Amino acid sequence: VQKTLHELAVLLKGKVIGDGAVIIGRVRGIEEAEKGDLTFIANPKYLKKIKATSASAILVSPGMESLGKNLLVVDDPYVAFGRALALFHPEDHGFTGISPLAVIEKSATVAGDGNVTIYPGVYVGRHARIERGVVLYPGVYIGHNAVIAEDAILYANVSVYRRCLIGRRVILHAGVVVGSDGFGFARPGQENVKIPQVGIVQIDDDVEVGANTTIDRAAIGRTWIQRGVKIDNLVQIGHNVIIGEYSIIVSQVGISGSTKVGKGVMLGGQSALVGHIQIGDYVMVAARSGVHKDIPPGQVVAGSPHKPHRDWLRTEACISKLPEMRHTMTALLKRVKILEARLQARDEKGD
Amino acid sequence: VQKTLHELAVLLKGKVIGDGAVIIGRVRGIEEAEKGDLTFIANPKYLKKIKATSASAILVSPGMESLGKNLLVVDDPYVAFGRALALFHPEDHGFTGISPLAVIEKSATVAGDGNVTIYPGVYVGRHARIERGVVLYPGVYIGHNAVIAEDAILYANVSVYRRCLIGRRVILHAGVVVGSDGFGFARPGQENVKIPQVGIVQIDDDVEVGANTTIDRAAIGRTWIQRGVKIDNLVQIGHNVIIGEYSIIVSQVGISGSTKVGKGVMLGGQSALVGHIQIGDYVMVAARSGVHKDIPPGQVVAGSPHKPHRDWLRTEACISKLPEMRHTMTALLKRVKILEARLQARDEKGD
Amino acid sequence: VQKTLHELAVLLKGKVIGDGAVIIGRVRGIEEAEKGDLTFIANPKYLKKIKATSASAILVSPGMESLGKNLLVVDDPYVAFGRALALFHPEDHGFTGISPLAVIEKSATVAGDGNVTIYPGVYVGRHARIERGVVLYPGVYIGHNAVIAEDAILYANVSVYRRCLIGRRVILHAGVVVGSDGFGFARPGQENVKIPQVGIVQIDDDVEVGANTTIDRAAIGRTWIQRGVKIDNLVQIGHNVIIGEYSIIVSQVGISGSTKVGKGVMLGGQSALVGHIQIGDYVMVAARSGVHKDIPPGQVVAGSPHKPHRDWLRTEACISKLPEMRHTMTALLKRVKILEARLQARDEKGD
Repeated sequence: VQKTLHELAVLLKGKVIGDGAVIIGRVRGIEEAEKGDLTFIANPKYLKKIKATSASAILVSPGMESLGKNLLVVDDPYVAFGRALALFHPEDHGFTGISPLAVIEKSATVAGDGNVTIYPGVYVGRHARIERGVVLYPGVYIGHNAVIAEDAILYANVSVYRRCLIGRRVILHAGVVVGSDGFGFARPGQENVKIPQVGIVQIDDDVEVGANTTIDRAAIGRTWIQRGVKIDNLVQIGHNVIIGEYSIIVSQVGISGSTKVGKGVMLGGQSALVGHIQIGDYVMVAARSGVHKDIPPGQVVAGSPHKPHRDWLRTEACISKLPEMRHTMTALLKRVKILEARLQARDEKGD
Repeated sequence: VQKTLHELAVLLKGKVIGDGAVIIGRVRGIEEAEKGDLTFIANPKYLKKIKATSASAILVSPGMESLGKNLLVVDDPYVAFGRALALFHPEDHGFTGISPLAVIEKSATVAGDGNVTIYPGVYVGRHARIERGVVLYPGVYIGHNAVIAEDAILYANVSVYRRCLIGRRVILHAGVVVGSDGFGFARPGQENVKIPQVGIVQIDDDVEVGANTTIDRAAIGRTWIQRGVKIDNLVQIGHNVIIGEYSIIVSQVGISGSTKVGKGVMLGGQSALVGHIQIGDYVMVAARSGVHKDIPPGQVVAGSPHKPHRDWLRTEACISKLPEMRHTMTALLKRVKILEARLQARDEKGD
Repeated sequence: VQKTLHELAVLLKGKVIGDGAVIIGRVRGIEEAEKGDLTFIANPKYLKKIKATSASAILVSPGMESLGKNLLVVDDPYVAFGRALALFHPEDHGFTGISPLAVIEKSATVAGDGNVTIYPGVYVGRHARIERGVVLYPGVYIGHNAVIAEDAILYANVSVYRRCLIGRRVILHAGVVVGSDGFGFARPGQENVKIPQVGIVQIDDDVEVGANTTIDRAAIGRTWIQRGVKIDNLVQIGHNVIIGEYSIIVSQVGISGSTKVGKGVMLGGQSALVGHIQIGDYVMVAARSGVHKDIPPGQVVAGSPHKPHRDWLRTEACISKLPEMRHTMTALLKRVKILEARLQARDEKGD
């Protein structure tokens, strides 16, 4: 793909400053960009890098216009950069059609042959529905009565259990499991009597789920991942959890059963939430935090057990000073003993 | 499915109080239950909810009889609730038989066509044995000489390596890996010479393993998951580990090589055990604990490195007070300095 | 397989002390070894075990010769033990050839039928290249333009996305995902605009990757696992990460985007590295550490946030003493108050 900067300006809704006829053939980061490349700068503190780059054009935000380079001024340079990447490197799913080597049960409903991509080695169960634009890679398993809505992409070896609902434009990366049984047993540690998990998982539109992440079906009712949520790799989401719109869950997070996460929440890598709590909208949880109770909206927390981020910083600073504190305390103890002895001596002397 | 409360009483071995002819068509939690539903209450502290519910009948324990609702008195309401769920929502594996699109090596032994369920896309290796009642979902891989005992259910894309043994009624959720090589290398960090892992994994009867959990084969001998153990999603179990009967391992736990876990042990989510230690029977390890040495039977531990739970609580309380402690100590230091100065002044004055 | 100790001496490049004609049929650990077995001792502190063992021969290092048993003296007994295991328990991949039930796109390049092992249920995409000696187990997915170099072994249900490069003799255990999209979104928590991930993963020769581990493709450029690296199960490696030669990554570690790990580094289980940092050569990171900034070469660190290991030990010792410290401080406070009162009384008395 080759485009002039002018053409890109139309596609990315930006304004050219400099030579609009310059030809762009590739998109690169600012450090690696060379002649023929488009790059971007999101943060004014990196302005110096613009001077050093050999890129043929740079995406910048308004107010960064006069830099003596070919610029494309856009509202959000990082978003525009993403769109440019999609333009120059469109993902290619290989073919449209239903492979004769896929197994599709007769009672399943699949959008016409010209509208879906179903690879060899896919299995689609009874009464499942596969809508138009869906891509199912080899090894994908769709249980009975599951629904895969329009334009969803399921990469290799994804497993979607019976009756689960996958929204439009959802992306499930390789090895994702949706709808495995929640972890529910009566008489734990003694007989471990299984409580059947008869609910479902519902994933709303525009969700993306990272490789080998697992999302358990509800005991009763639904586990619910709302619109626009992005989940990284190897995350565990327990039964009956609800994740609010546009929240972001970084890799290896674990969320126990029935916890409700608000919208726009950020959960840092390897953090964990116990079950049956509520996390307010726009909460930020630092990486590796252990959250053991409700968090009101907008809070930033860290640590395990979690604290407000400021308290955590203060506490951590103290912990670093602990050996010194202990030393000081030993010295203090000695000095107080001496003071006591001196006063005692005076008392005994009678003055 | 529809049953009268009387019929349910027979099936769940309970005693009806109230209208035994009432018809039950569904099983729900106490908050959501409506007319026609059976619900349960496990804990007398939720008795108030019984008055508020619209459920047509409620499972209760003995001693909770006189509540003015239709009751089914059973020994353990949660267990009975589980059984009722299984009655009203029986899991349906779709068909009995061996799909012609499964690949079964000639030397494998598979129970007769009418006794197993083998989906398309399954692979069963040489000399493997698949016993009656087994269900193998699409994408299941059974290595050579492996054994899958009666009534085991292996969901989609499970991989069982060569020679591993899966017990009766075992459930392996999608993406589980049993029998991958343990992590053993000579000259680590230099040449990383692989030590072949020639042992097996043995999983005893009635074990359930969550989605994408991995259980490594032994270096020599066996990694052994004993009867009734329940393992959640994304757990890692190293080579030569032994997990005692009925223990419960919550998601994202990691257990390093050769560690022995007793029976009835509970390991909280994201906790970790180092290698070559012994965890006594009925130990409870709090979520996110890091266990670095043996734990005697019956202990409750928390923290990383772990401590007895009481000590951990006391220590955590102190940590929260650290900024305050530090402040107090600075003040103390000042006061002692003043005292010293005052005594010094007296000394110098000569009194 | 049966060999005399003399024959083994030739194969393992060792020197026999004792009866070279003794017949060895098996390889076992020192605790379990019986007549007919070869065992080993790596550490002189276990010399006592040699006297107790019934093994027919023992691998030892130079300087441990005169023990009254049949010995095989080698440079590195553990390495020799590994080789002996491989001799007595060679792994058997079942057949050589390309199953007619594998799906190989026409434009793919696959080494001749006699030189590779491709099981039923494998999918090889357009323009992919499978070199000689490769073994692909059932359910393996190879995306378009990917390369699997000589003698690599990919176990069941491994997914390699488009254009990724897998080196010679690489072992990918079941469920591994290579090349899933990195976690990159603009306007996080608001719109979560996806940044296309157009780079690749490159895995160099002699790398081994544990079951269900995930390695994300680069945003632009490559995520790069260098020669001889060994990665355990359920590890997460973010986009654009570089892991230096012969480093060892224990299970459930998470490494965020663009971090560079040096060579010979050891990362303990469940530890985590934030993004965009550099870890020097031969650094050792204790299990469960949280690393938040660069670490110079050769350091040993622990804790979360991480500290030099010695500081961590000192700090942890203090934390254990915190309840005692707090008690001491309360007592000190009281004693200082008394001193102050006594001095005050004297002042008031006028002496």
